[in-house]
Amino acid sequence: MTLSDEVRIALDGKWRHVREQSRIELAKMDLAFDHDLSLDEARERTFRQLKELVPTGIPAAGFSPEYGGAGDPGMAVTGIEMLAQFDLSLMVKAGVQWGLFGGAVENLGTKVHHDAYIRDLINLDLVGCFAMTESGHGSDVQNLETTATYDPATEEFVIHSPTPSSRKDYIGNAAKHATMAAVFAQLVTRGESYGVHCFLVPIRDDKGRDLPGVTTSDCGHKGGLGGVDNGRIVFDQVRIPRGNLLNRYGQVDEGGAYSSPIDDTGRRFFTMLGTLVRGRVSVGGSASASAEVALSIAGRYALKRRQFGPEPGVEILLADYRMHQRRLLPLIARSYAYRFAQNQLVARMHRLQITDDADPQQKRELESRAAGLKVVQTWHASHAIQESRELCGGAGYLAENRLTTLRGDVDVFTTFEGDNHVLLQLVAKELLTAYAAEVGGLDPVGMVRFVAGTVADVVKERTAASQLIQRLIDARPGNDDDHDLLDLGTQLNLFEDREQHVIETVARRLQRATKADDDDEAFRIFNGAQDHLIRAGRVHIDRVVLEAFTAGIGRCEDEEAQELLRDVCTLYALSTIEEDLAWFQGHNRLSDQRAKVVTSEVNAMCEKLRPHLLTLVEGFGVPEESLGAAMLQD
Amino acid sequence: MTLSDEVRIALDGKWRHVREQSRIELAKMDLAFDHDLSLDEARERTFRQLKELVPTGIPAAGFSPEYGGAGDPGMAVTGIEMLAQFDLSLMVKAGVQWGLFGGAVENLGTKVHHDAYIRDLINLDLVGCFAMTESGHGSDVQNLETTATYDPATEEFVIHSPTPSSRKDYIGNAAKHATMAAVFAQLVTRGESYGVHCFLVPIRDDKGRDLPGVTTSDCGHKGGLGGVDNGRIVFDQVRIPRGNLLNRYGQVDEGGAYSSPIDDTGRRFFTMLGTLVRGRVSVGGSASASAEVALSIAGRYALKRRQFGPEPGVEILLADYRMHQRRLLPLIARSYAYRFAQNQLVARMHRLQITDDADPQQKRELESRAAGLKVVQTWHASHAIQESRELCGGAGYLAENRLTTLRGDVDVFTTFEGDNHVLLQLVAKELLTAYAAEVGGLDPVGMVRFVAGTVADVVKERTAASQLIQRLIDARPGNDDDHDLLDLGTQLNLFEDREQHVIETVARRLQRATKADDDDEAFRIFNGAQDHLIRAGRVHIDRVVLEAFTAGIGRCEDEEAQELLRDVCTLYALSTIEEDLAWFQGHNRLSDQRAKVVTSEVNAMCEKLRPHLLTLVEGFGVPEESLGAAMLQD
Repeated sequence: MTLSDEVRIALDGKWRHVREQSRIELAKMDLAFDHDLSLDEARERTFRQLKELVPTGIPAAGFSPEYGGAGDPGMAVTGIEMLAQFDLSLMVKAGVQWGLFGGAVENLGTKVHHDAYIRDLINLDLVGCFAMTESGHGSDVQNLETTATYDPATEEFVIHSPTPSSRKDYIGNAAKHATMAAVFAQLVTRGESYGVHCFLVPIRDDKGRDLPGVTTSDCGHKGGLGGVDNGRIVFDQVRIPRGNLLNRYGQVDEGGAYSSPIDDTGRRFFTMLGTLVRGRVSVGGSASASAEVALSIAGRYALKRRQFGPEPGVEILLADYRMHQRRLLPLIARSYAYRFAQNQLVARMHRLQITDDADPQQKRELESRAAGLKVVQTWHASHAIQESRELCGGAGYLAENRLTTLRGDVDVFTTFEGDNHVLLQLVAKELLTAYAAEVGGLDPVGMVRFVAGTVADVVKERTAASQLIQRLIDARPGNDDDHDLLDLGTQLNLFEDREQHVIETVARRLQRATKADDDDEAFRIFNGAQDHLIRAGRVHIDRVVLEAFTAGIGRCEDEEAQELLRDVCTLYALSTIEEDLAWFQGHNRLSDQRAKVVTSEVNAMCEKLRPHLLTLVEGFGVPEESLGAAMLQD
Repeated sequence: MTLSDEVRIALDGKWRHVREQSRIELAKMDLAFDHDLSLDEARERTFRQLKELVPTGIPAAGFSPEYGGAGDPGMAVTGIEMLAQFDLSLMVKAGVQWGLFGGAVENLGTKVHHDAYIRDLINLDLVGCFAMTESGHGSDVQNLETTATYDPATEEFVIHSPTPSSRKDYIGNAAKHATMAAVFAQLVTRGESYGVHCFLVPIRDDKGRDLPGVTTSDCGHKGGLGGVDNGRIVFDQVRIPRGNLLNRYGQVDEGGAYSSPIDDTGRRFFTMLGTLVRGRVSVGGSASASAEVALSIAGRYALKRRQFGPEPGVEILLADYRMHQRRLLPLIARSYAYRFAQNQLVARMHRLQITDDADPQQKRELESRAAGLKVVQTWHASHAIQESRELCGGAGYLAENRLTTLRGDVDVFTTFEGDNHVLLQLVAKELLTAYAAEVGGLDPVGMVRFVAGTVADVVKERTAASQLIQRLIDARPGNDDDHDLLDLGTQLNLFEDREQHVIETVARRLQRATKADDDDEAFRIFNGAQDHLIRAGRVHIDRVVLEAFTAGIGRCEDEEAQELLRDVCTLYALSTIEEDLAWFQGHNRLSDQRAKVVTSEVNAMCEKLRPHLLTLVEGFGVPEESLGAAMLQD
């Protein structure tokens, strides 16, 4: 086996068999987006591709074997992620149908819903959409306006959009293909509201016409994802049977009495949302997959294209320029880091989802980590694809070289499935409130009132890799060692130390709000610290990622590959530190002298990794023929 | 007059009358890009719009009155820039026809060419393209491969593409509309090569068919600019009359004897290129215009859209969140800064271009500044539009809200008309070689051999605003002043000091190369310092921009507007310092304590400017009805 095979195996992780199978099967399917198609044609083509996926088994992977599934959540997420290597429209459409819509039916519904719908939705006899977001309510889902009012006279719920801002918006599959919507609405019965629940609402007949009371419309062209029919839905007193409430976490009896296993409205809603974690896991992983494609293209182009050189008439490879290495290699290193972190996340998710009585604290930690990794992976994807485009100059701007398509498609990933800034706030909130079950919502005041006094302990609480990490930290060389910054223990210590400091200081700022006299004052304190809070979420995730990289290296069995991965990890760690150098200097974590060493070690590591550039992009496991970039074929 | 009128007047600068006229006339023309059109339809529509521009006088503005022009280069550039507020495809198509192709004929040709072509190209009876870039040669234009070999037997040049990499590529207008190309090729006569010259080569007949020996093809879909037909051209021994050489800087007589007013081949070529500076000036200004549109959209949306809030059910404006202010306002401040810098650049360009015997040193400084401002403005545009998109969430991703179109269109601006990294290297080179006329090329070794011993003097050499700037710097308060960082003199001093230090240190590194034994060693030294060199170009431009902002404030006549602009300038300066805080700390320009003050002053300034958000976006002078964002119309 070659070195790149070994590296690829390490990156492929536990669901390698799914990846290997997908690489072969998907490559045969001609999935590349076609810019010559009209909006309608592109949507129909993606829909046809979706149907072709059914026999691959990927769609069924996540569902229970009782309904023809494989009961393998890890496989489901990995399968979706692999689609992202080929076409993000198809990935999103698959994610909407089997992840979001299917996930809602499976996780929020009960046996009657499973029996009725799961087989059909797997094989696309039932096409659904996930109608959560409203024109006026994206991140703040707890305050959705759509209502589902129970009418005991007919034993029906009445679904209604009371205001223009309550219109369901940006909903994938809603403009065209969905015949049923999983609608999130405020459940009202006997004059009382019990918060947001999910209802199955038929929206189209089999000829594609809106059903009575339903008005769908089309979001039209977008910045990308041309194969996905995003649309809007307005409900005018639409009646559905009582049984269409997905009633795992809340039930209304014939007479209209409400009951739920969870008393608190907010906690109930966030428990429901928590069951849908797979969506965020898929989005983060798919973003990373698309970044890997882009970096594979830019990496190969840098090994092919020449420009300038020592003297007129002699041109050298782009990859041999310092600046080019500086722009490309740290992004590749970051993609490695996120791949290991994502693999760890998927494995944890899988473990928790196949366990009947999973620990609630572990579930919340998983949700928080899924949110955080979604954030860093989607930003990284936007950035890495963009830089890849620029690294390929004019050629990078042509659709035939695929980078601009990837860029446009992945763009929305930073704001859908939770806006990245809001999600980082959520990550920080969970840390600061010590995952307190009471703090379900995201409203600022509710949150700051609960900031724990024991934040430091939460931060220190170690996760699975802890012993290995602690050993590395304990064994780190002293600062007097010339190359101590290359030591993983030193790097881990710097990341951990930064996280602790940032979280402790923001906690101190927010604790003042717990004593604030009124809500306005509490909000003012929250708002003044908002950037600090978001930063806390970010540095926390940075630490989680570095630890996951460390664990991933530990699992790699080939010595040569392990050594290469260690260098890649160092480049990730040091370039991350370099981006935040002002903090490390300003807080006396690095002397001015050592700060300069960070930069020179990054340069040195770029040079050291330069001969491995091809190996590193081959490690991503995107076969050259699947890259779809014309310029690499000349 | 309102405060926003006063601010707009300050930003509009010297060619305000052109802006005012364009705002009215262009708004009537329905220029918004239509995503429902096919590639072909979109190109034809943009071409029709181009024809509609002819009567506005913008196309003729830059040409000599002798041929129906206004002889007003400042107007020409401003007119192109205003197109960018409406549609970047149209701006680029106009720039190709009247700026690049027309500019080549006017600046590289002589009276015979002017008489023959300028009237026709103004009114689009002659549509041209600018065939410089080749598939294998983008930035390194001096090493283009296309040949123009003189044949004295027929008194013709033979234009030929000898290799696949010599194919002309990405050429705007070449896929479809151009009937003539301004082709850059190596001039060869009597067996000797005299470097790159420009030739007028007919490529299509009046039915749009390729002429004999010419093979055009289509670059197809791109990341944006759907209205521009970029294409490729291959020449197979195409014969053109001797007179089709644009012969201002080089002539071949009937017998094949070459003559030129400039002996050195490299210097000759860079003198030719220098006459085309208007292209870069237009690209930078247009990028800024598109950033202003995006920020106007995001700014207005932030004043309309609510989310979360102090307590459940109460939602507050996005603009009132700390993080939102932090993301939006520094970008607006930067747009202000670049607008003032661009206005200053256009005024200088105008002055030099209407002067018959302009000073060569001033010309090179202008070229360098145009290159540098092109870089920072295009990166800023990509970044500001992207952030605007994300600040508008899902709505920002819909084409009907225009941000994704702007983003895709402007994307290529960072790599065309000179790749940004290469241009920054050029800026640094000019500084380091003290604008030495001998150092025409960009080949690394040629350059490092010439690094001046007197770099410090070059850096200190002051430009127009110098007295005002020096007064401000001299009058700055001491570091013990609690708010001294708000002082413009302090900010100017920090920028200037950083520039001097960075340039001096990179000069010292490169001076070692002047003594290097061989070219490989010289190249190694250059390459090791490449990132440092590029950084030098960048910090130089930062200083130029801050000084231009300072001068712009000085010219503003309304006191209230002046005060507001001063705050915006502070936000620009401090957020720029904040981005490079590690440098200021690590080089003892800011103590750790004062570094923290930078961040708190940025926050404070965001809060201070928040009530002026609408005024600030109105100041950009893009009327709300021209923004073309559906979400603002609800």
